[in-house]
Amino acid sequence: MTSTTPTPIQENLVEKNEAYGKAFTKGHLALPPAKHYAIVTCMDARIDPAAAYGIDLGDAHVIRNAGGSAVDALRSLVISQQLLGTKEILLIKHTGCGMLTFDTETATGIVEKNLGEAGLKELKRFVGGEGKFQDFPVLESAVESDVKLLKESRLFPDEVVISGWVYEVETGKVRRVV
Amino acid sequence: MTSTTPTPIQENLVEKNEAYGKAFTKGHLALPPAKHYAIVTCMDARIDPAAAYGIDLGDAHVIRNAGGSAVDALRSLVISQQLLGTKEILLIKHTGCGMLTFDTETATGIVEKNLGEAGLKELKRFVGGEGKFQDFPVLESAVESDVKLLKESRLFPDEVVISGWVYEVETGKVRRVV
Repeated sequence: MTSTTPTPIQENLVEKNEAYGKAFTKGHLALPPAKHYAIVTCMDARIDPAAAYGIDLGDAHVIRNAGGSAVDALRSLVISQQLLGTKEILLIKHTGCGMLTFDTETATGIVEKNLGEAGLKELKRFVGGEGKFQDFPVLESAVESDVKLLKESRLFPDEVVISGWVYEVETGKVRRVV
Repeated sequence: MTSTTPTPIQENLVEKNEAYGKAFTKGHLALPPAKHYAIVTCMDARIDPAAAYGIDLGDAHVIRNAGGSAVDALRSLVISQQLLGTKEILLIKHTGCGMLTFDTETATGIVEKNLGEAGLKELKRFVGGEGKFQDFPVLESAVESDVKLLKESRLFPDEVVISGWVYEVETGKVRRVV
């Protein structure tokens, strides 16, 4: 839907950003992250990476997708590491993640019901791994297997430090898994 | 590289998060974003979406990747929209983006030089679109074409509101493109 009248969400962006822009003093920061690290975490609305993970503006790349998937993050991580000097990757999934609450079969069924055959076809064509949703049944195991995937990948030199963590949306606390 | 001694980056996460956890009062928030919208933006270290885009904790999904690519975000957006009630998508790219500074050919050359044939092979196998880096030469055009891609996609019903924006890393300000 195209609309010329701003939606409340768009108005919120413009209004809050106006205040942010007025107080902004960080226009001098360089493109490559000052602390040479990248975080992969979930898109979940309950996570504020800068605040919860202690990232100052300009210090780290932050990659976010549904579930904090390493596979979805590969292109971004290669750019971060090979072109922009990243030396360390922290992968942080979280408790109460949506990816723990459904499976690909159920989600595919919903897409088919709502969007029909055309939607399903696009899903399989454009979403990596034949439209798989990359859901996971056990949180800690998913952290471990994503870290393993990154460590075993030929896309990152051995000296890149890779660790895996869980963020608890109930307490605001992180703990290391691997 | 596996290390049992925490790196300074890991120590920073643990220390800053400890303070965050102690002051945390938002453990009651629900999984679906309260304001039913999703933001797609870049992983760039100079962007703090919560502060710059005025997102309160619990209000919106935030998807981030190199360049704020709509293609990379498709899986996450389908989950956000079909399973978690998102009604509006804001795609926000930014000035000074790394994706404006190199092209896929150059980047591929760097990967091949640093990681050899094995790295290049993985890149083509695991990174969507045959390992393309999704670089773009003109910022506003890239916003327009990504919004077009989302609007024309069968993965989102027509009533989902989709808009495109630019964030200026020099001034902290956003402006609407489409």
